[in-house]
Amino acid sequence: MSHVLPHSDALLARINEAIDSYFSRNTSESAAINMYYEQLWRDMHRLIRSGGKRLRPQMVVSAYKAFGGTGEERIIAVAAAQELLHMSLLIHDDVIDRDFVRYGVDNITGNYEKVHYAIVTDPTDRLHYAQGASILAGDLLIAGSFQLMAESGLDAVDIVEIQKIHSRSIFEVAGGELIDTESAFRRPGEISTKAVALYKTASYTFVGPLLIGATLAGIDEQSKAHLKEYAQNLGIAYQLRDDVIGVFGKEEQTGKPTTSDIREGKYTYMVEQFYARATREEQERFDLYFGDKNIEQREVEIVKDLLRTSGALARTEEAIDRYVHQARAALGRLGSQVGSLDDLELLITIVTKRDK
Amino acid sequence: MSHVLPHSDALLARINEAIDSYFSRNTSESAAINMYYEQLWRDMHRLIRSGGKRLRPQMVVSAYKAFGGTGEERIIAVAAAQELLHMSLLIHDDVIDRDFVRYGVDNITGNYEKVHYAIVTDPTDRLHYAQGASILAGDLLIAGSFQLMAESGLDAVDIVEIQKIHSRSIFEVAGGELIDTESAFRRPGEISTKAVALYKTASYTFVGPLLIGATLAGIDEQSKAHLKEYAQNLGIAYQLRDDVIGVFGKEEQTGKPTTSDIREGKYTYMVEQFYARATREEQERFDLYFGDKNIEQREVEIVKDLLRTSGALARTEEAIDRYVHQARAALGRLGSQVGSLDDLELLITIVTKRDK
Repeated sequence: MSHVLPHSDALLARINEAIDSYFSRNTSESAAINMYYEQLWRDMHRLIRSGGKRLRPQMVVSAYKAFGGTGEERIIAVAAAQELLHMSLLIHDDVIDRDFVRYGVDNITGNYEKVHYAIVTDPTDRLHYAQGASILAGDLLIAGSFQLMAESGLDAVDIVEIQKIHSRSIFEVAGGELIDTESAFRRPGEISTKAVALYKTASYTFVGPLLIGATLAGIDEQSKAHLKEYAQNLGIAYQLRDDVIGVFGKEEQTGKPTTSDIREGKYTYMVEQFYARATREEQERFDLYFGDKNIEQREVEIVKDLLRTSGALARTEEAIDRYVHQARAALGRLGSQVGSLDDLELLITIVTKRDK
Repeated sequence: MSHVLPHSDALLARINEAIDSYFSRNTSESAAINMYYEQLWRDMHRLIRSGGKRLRPQMVVSAYKAFGGTGEERIIAVAAAQELLHMSLLIHDDVIDRDFVRYGVDNITGNYEKVHYAIVTDPTDRLHYAQGASILAGDLLIAGSFQLMAESGLDAVDIVEIQKIHSRSIFEVAGGELIDTESAFRRPGEISTKAVALYKTASYTFVGPLLIGATLAGIDEQSKAHLKEYAQNLGIAYQLRDDVIGVFGKEEQTGKPTTSDIREGKYTYMVEQFYARATREEQERFDLYFGDKNIEQREVEIVKDLLRTSGALARTEEAIDRYVHQARAALGRLGSQVGSLDDLELLITIVTKRDK
């Protein structure tokens, strides 16, 4: 966990305590059912403690304060619920992407495979059971995110209200995930990369947490519309920045090889811009290397050059500026609120100027 | 849908209308995101309309009426939510069990595979994407079950209360599913078949729906404890009856080959009883055929005979009687409530005397 936003150490510790408390309680309740179920809960707890910046819980708190909410300890459990949803999506994404590592450690599938190595000897069966455990783990954490809200002790009317927002986030992020997967085998441009950024990223990373925090602080409907516009635009800018970093970022800062998006052939807004602008010859050269898992560093540099010289990188930076501008304009329309919008101002800078 | 309980045609139609309305709304909202997302929603709608007795929604209504609830139309959406949870579990179970058919038609994975046959030519990739769509579909319906409650218009305090029950059901059913899967490669007897019946079946099929209906009717804490005991015992009896039908039932009544549980080697309470009672010689004979996908009818009959002669079948029938007795005793302690317990009495007969 790190200080994404200027929250106190004490607040960050309380978010982690709420997460720990949720997993500890479920671990002991699962032990009453069966030791193998207990193992699954312990493993989910291990995974969520292995990484994650707690960005979404922090945003719940920032929005709560920005709109005049007081006594932030009241909403810690609801903030932590956002991390459960995030973890559930990561666990299910990893099944869909056939990944075994998350936060630099074994994910649920990876750990299950190791634990069952000697017990389930057929590798296909073992993988399948391991993915089954991951499916159940993700299911539990989706339900858990609603449960933390239901058990938060907040006013029931508020709980029901934020659950409607939460349900909408899940509706959008599942759609974003589906079309992102679908884009792997559809024609370039058929699925809008902006739609993927809006639904897969902005929805549950920005819109949901910010609206939930603000709703608990009693935001009015008019302001809610502005806040949503801010969140959607910022979320898209965040994803576009992520895509740029994924290609042009420095490995020592991102912690992952900056060639992996190129080797995977990740279809991003920047790549979409490339195809829209490059000559046929440039496209043919690009296609030769982009998405090829075995290319060398020299060929990675050719791809990067093509993204630069075609103007795709510049267009992406312009788009980021445009979305940031819109986010800032929406924020401007929120000027009359009770609290301070400093955190939301700061968030714009953090999100778009970062290099990892 | 069929009249499991003596509800009116109008009520059953309203349950289906609530389900239809949920899927229609989400289908049109998904269309605003992307046509492929809309396809997924249409397909979920198709699947839920292809089968299912709506047992769980009917139980919500029965319990609501039994404990003095009036105006059953108020709780239809919450009743329908139980069918969403059920469907989400079936969809994810089918991924875990590598099944492609449900209710005699393509499930989400099966349909996705057909639709993408020409588009994704690698069969491993195609299966993987198809299962990814099923994972997302199940996620959406878990969230949808909470959403239907949140949007039900009921008193917010009641909504929060039933969501706590609902969360607990999901916690238990995931545990039951996990240990049932685990039992496929653990030593016989290591995982209790009673625990599987209690957590995988009774939890969300009986306990959750009945407690939710009764809670909305304002049941007191003491009665809630009795109702839970009734539901748990009845749920276990239901599963044990299912296991007997799975081996000794008639194909024309169950609609599936009654040899499939034997060919799969499904480890049930009855099989557990067999291993506890049979001689070593009988066990060796049993092991020769049980779980062998290629056995013939003659060998199926040998397995059935062994289950009979060992006393495993009789012991299972005794166990069903015992759980029914306990369910009935718990029901007896509920005598003083406002409404009528006729439906709950009837449910015992329906559940345990059925032949399909």
